[in-house]
Amino acid sequence: MDLWETFATNLRRLRNVRRWSQGELAYEARISRSYLSKLEKGAYYVSIKIIGRLANKLDVEPAELLKRSSNRG
Amino acid sequence: MDLWETFATNLRRLRNVRRWSQGELAYEARISRSYLSKLEKGAYYVSIKIIGRLANKLDVEPAELLKRSSNRG
Repeated sequence: MDLWETFATNLRRLRNVRRWSQGELAYEARISRSYLSKLEKGAYYVSIKIIGRLANKLDVEPAELLKRSSNRG
Repeated sequence: MDLWETFATNLRRLRNVRRWSQGELAYEARISRSYLSKLEKGAYYVSIKIIGRLANKLDVEPAELLKRSSNRG
């Protein structure tokens, strides 16, 4: 799985855990909903700045968003 | 410590562990030496693509580059 897919998957998972809509997370992280939607589909060019802002709002360490899941069991 | 500082610090540390010059790592990761130099000083706009490429060459998980050191002892 490529890194941007990993990021996209983690982003969707962590947002769903919090039961936030894309609109809610986008508002909190001060990005547009359509940009968040693209990120969750796997965008190439997300910057470290946006990674940091999303992690902050999702209340996880930024590294968490890049972590590959070690299993799916 | 801001996320880009964390990234910059980890990048320098991991490169030094491997005893690579900036030129060597830049060449391997297919970025310019001057851009790598900026990244190691703490650049704002490093993308997930570059994070992935550097991690690959440094032989670490991408998440490793965003991890805050928990202690300095």
